[in-house]
Amino acid sequence: MAWNRKHLLDIESLDADELNTVLDTARAFKAVGTRAIKKVPALRGKTVINLFVEPSTRTRISFELAEQRLSADVINFTAEASSLKKGETLKDTARNLEALNADFIVIRHSASGAPHFLSRFLNASVVNAGDGAHEHPTQALLDAFTIREKKGRIAGLNVTILGDILYSRVARSNIWALTKLGANVTLCGPSTLVPKVFEKMGCRVTYSVEEAIKDADIINLLRIQHERQRQTMFPSLNEYTSLFGLTRARMDRTKPDALIMHPGPINRGVEIDSEIADCKRSVILEQVTNGLAVRMAVLFLINGGKPQEVAA
Amino acid sequence: MAWNRKHLLDIESLDADELNTVLDTARAFKAVGTRAIKKVPALRGKTVINLFVEPSTRTRISFELAEQRLSADVINFTAEASSLKKGETLKDTARNLEALNADFIVIRHSASGAPHFLSRFLNASVVNAGDGAHEHPTQALLDAFTIREKKGRIAGLNVTILGDILYSRVARSNIWALTKLGANVTLCGPSTLVPKVFEKMGCRVTYSVEEAIKDADIINLLRIQHERQRQTMFPSLNEYTSLFGLTRARMDRTKPDALIMHPGPINRGVEIDSEIADCKRSVILEQVTNGLAVRMAVLFLINGGKPQEVAA
Amino acid sequence: MAWNRKHLLDIESLDADELNTVLDTARAFKAVGTRAIKKVPALRGKTVINLFVEPSTRTRISFELAEQRLSADVINFTAEASSLKKGETLKDTARNLEALNADFIVIRHSASGAPHFLSRFLNASVVNAGDGAHEHPTQALLDAFTIREKKGRIAGLNVTILGDILYSRVARSNIWALTKLGANVTLCGPSTLVPKVFEKMGCRVTYSVEEAIKDADIINLLRIQHERQRQTMFPSLNEYTSLFGLTRARMDRTKPDALIMHPGPINRGVEIDSEIADCKRSVILEQVTNGLAVRMAVLFLINGGKPQEVAA
Repeated sequence: MAWNRKHLLDIESLDADELNTVLDTARAFKAVGTRAIKKVPALRGKTVINLFVEPSTRTRISFELAEQRLSADVINFTAEASSLKKGETLKDTARNLEALNADFIVIRHSASGAPHFLSRFLNASVVNAGDGAHEHPTQALLDAFTIREKKGRIAGLNVTILGDILYSRVARSNIWALTKLGANVTLCGPSTLVPKVFEKMGCRVTYSVEEAIKDADIINLLRIQHERQRQTMFPSLNEYTSLFGLTRARMDRTKPDALIMHPGPINRGVEIDSEIADCKRSVILEQVTNGLAVRMAVLFLINGGKPQEVAA
Repeated sequence: MAWNRKHLLDIESLDADELNTVLDTARAFKAVGTRAIKKVPALRGKTVINLFVEPSTRTRISFELAEQRLSADVINFTAEASSLKKGETLKDTARNLEALNADFIVIRHSASGAPHFLSRFLNASVVNAGDGAHEHPTQALLDAFTIREKKGRIAGLNVTILGDILYSRVARSNIWALTKLGANVTLCGPSTLVPKVFEKMGCRVTYSVEEAIKDADIINLLRIQHERQRQTMFPSLNEYTSLFGLTRARMDRTKPDALIMHPGPINRGVEIDSEIADCKRSVILEQVTNGLAVRMAVLFLINGGKPQEVAA
Repeated sequence: MAWNRKHLLDIESLDADELNTVLDTARAFKAVGTRAIKKVPALRGKTVINLFVEPSTRTRISFELAEQRLSADVINFTAEASSLKKGETLKDTARNLEALNADFIVIRHSASGAPHFLSRFLNASVVNAGDGAHEHPTQALLDAFTIREKKGRIAGLNVTILGDILYSRVARSNIWALTKLGANVTLCGPSTLVPKVFEKMGCRVTYSVEEAIKDADIINLLRIQHERQRQTMFPSLNEYTSLFGLTRARMDRTKPDALIMHPGPINRGVEIDSEIADCKRSVILEQVTNGLAVRMAVLFLINGGKPQEVAA
């Protein structure tokens, strides 16, 4: 078991030992979530500031609850109505938050590299909760946790990631984590959204959804972010669904034990048929549960906690 | 004393014993509010998510503080900037929140029946914090608590509810609670807002405010929601005030010990004269205090607490 | 040591003994901020409501964290989506919040005198977190704390406040605190923003920045609030910077141990050069840290705490 890091900035710089340490620790925290009292005193008297410059209810709530269950004092700082609107630089905002004796700053930002930038001058620990199209490390960790829990291992599995790879920090972090842990990763989606250059990260790239899913042990669907302005990347939502949506017909051509994952929120009828989202092979809601455990583990380890001490 | 329910969805399905159990338990919690340390450990390590899809600062704060005083971990989820805006269904949102090991989901929603809907598929306990024009059960419980505390009983009292009955979940829940507890309920307001069909719920309906208030022990005024588009239901605010507003002159024609209630926020000079709102017979602020006690009692009972253990 | 006040409404009505009591108590709380567990149980089971009718992320977060570190139950009530928007009066809103057994109401309001107004009818303690152009007492206390900590004393020091004095509650509260504690206060800025009438408060007024800074031990820069509509008070931001901005050239003409203060958020390149903001003589971030300690001290003293008991 190895963890000596002050920050969690990305998956790219972690090695397999470190990834496994987080996953092992998260397993202990998942058990905490089933207790009558779902709380440990590990971060009591520590201050965590959730600096969400880009809105994200889902990820923020998962972090906030993880922090509460670790007994930390929690402050939510969102971009709306904040000093960032008054023209303050991100650096000044972060240093002002740190000056409140913050121990952790969990940052979500639309600019790739924002967490790394903060880590260069802050004494507080920085946790990346998603930066631009760069990385979303806790999402990759919870995905890896879910795969390992369900399949008993990650090495040797065929994992297909389907959708908008180009703009997806979830895809990037997943590719790093899964290849480090020994999985065979296939990327698929519209050619405008899945450039061949991803092969350099050790993945197979294919534009045939049938090819992508037929041998997959895991099919990880990305959200089509139709509320953003990406319509130019493919003709229409219907076109996307017809070419890449996970339908009952396509599902029938997957391995019988292939699992369906999705980082949420799902678009029923777009990237996934409604009945597939709710079927037994979908582990989408378990991903949510595991996200909480993984985030508790990350904060706990950065705080110097030892995995064997989780129960305390 | 009887309480075996997992949810609080409405008043309609409760019986008088259950109502009285909540009121008795709330009495113990009201005492907690006067202690130096206004806190009990009953819900320590439990997670409560306040899912407020329809905005409501007042009710949300009352629930949030009730939850804090029970030592729960609390997450506020509001519709703004949430995944509901990204097209996620309410069902998916609720199941995602539950996947965070939530023990309670307190829901406020503009659609009647939303809490019942959630209760059909969630394992978490659902508490209705107001659903459309259907019910607002904790408001009715705090109103009943206030009446019982002030008058020593509810059975046999004459309670008049005055205002927009048709669109009011407060009125509906109050009618259920008060008739079950043996009060004589009179409804009064503009005929467009008080249809005769309410007589089937066991109430008297009258369009004469003088008739409605002269024998009343309790006059419960509803808020005229002039910020919503209801102007078509009566000619003008002035017209409403002149016909149904509780003025000094009308107050003089009530029983000398008749009490004035209002769920707030009040419109001074519209449904109630400013001096009446502040007079000794107004118990409007005590309703607010009692609301906190009633909400603590509801969460405590659903969590399996026994009334005699409140003091712990 | 003397503190018998129920509210903190302004600096004007405090005497030097009271000011020093807050500063001495804050020193003990600053030490709490460096502990492994930055938390004391002093306000456990007490309820603090942050009533921020005028938006302020920075001050609200400082108060919220101070309250959490004192173990209070905390409710944030902001003007957005609140009953104040439904036409409720401030008095009714405050009385409704108090009816939740609130022990403290921390109020930020755009109207001068709002905290005094509340204190006249509330039983809860009222803490002024900034009211219009009137006072911002905790800012003045943290500024005084910072000066005393850095210089070992306040009496006899030359303190220059530079900027928009006329509309600044920070300036007003600072003038009261510093003159009571024996400092020599100089005010400087555009003549439209620094009326001569301030001399009646015991200050020197000058329109020459060179004159204002040459003997200063402390230079406290106010924020130019260019996002508000004050452009008419001086021709342009460039004009302001050129006439009153703290540049390297001007800095070279100050005393070698003169310290630079700023309530934040700073406008780099407007009222202060970027390199000056980051130089060793800038104590801007320490002000933020001290703000937390001062706010803990204020709440602690109002709650009846004795300075010698902080460690508990």
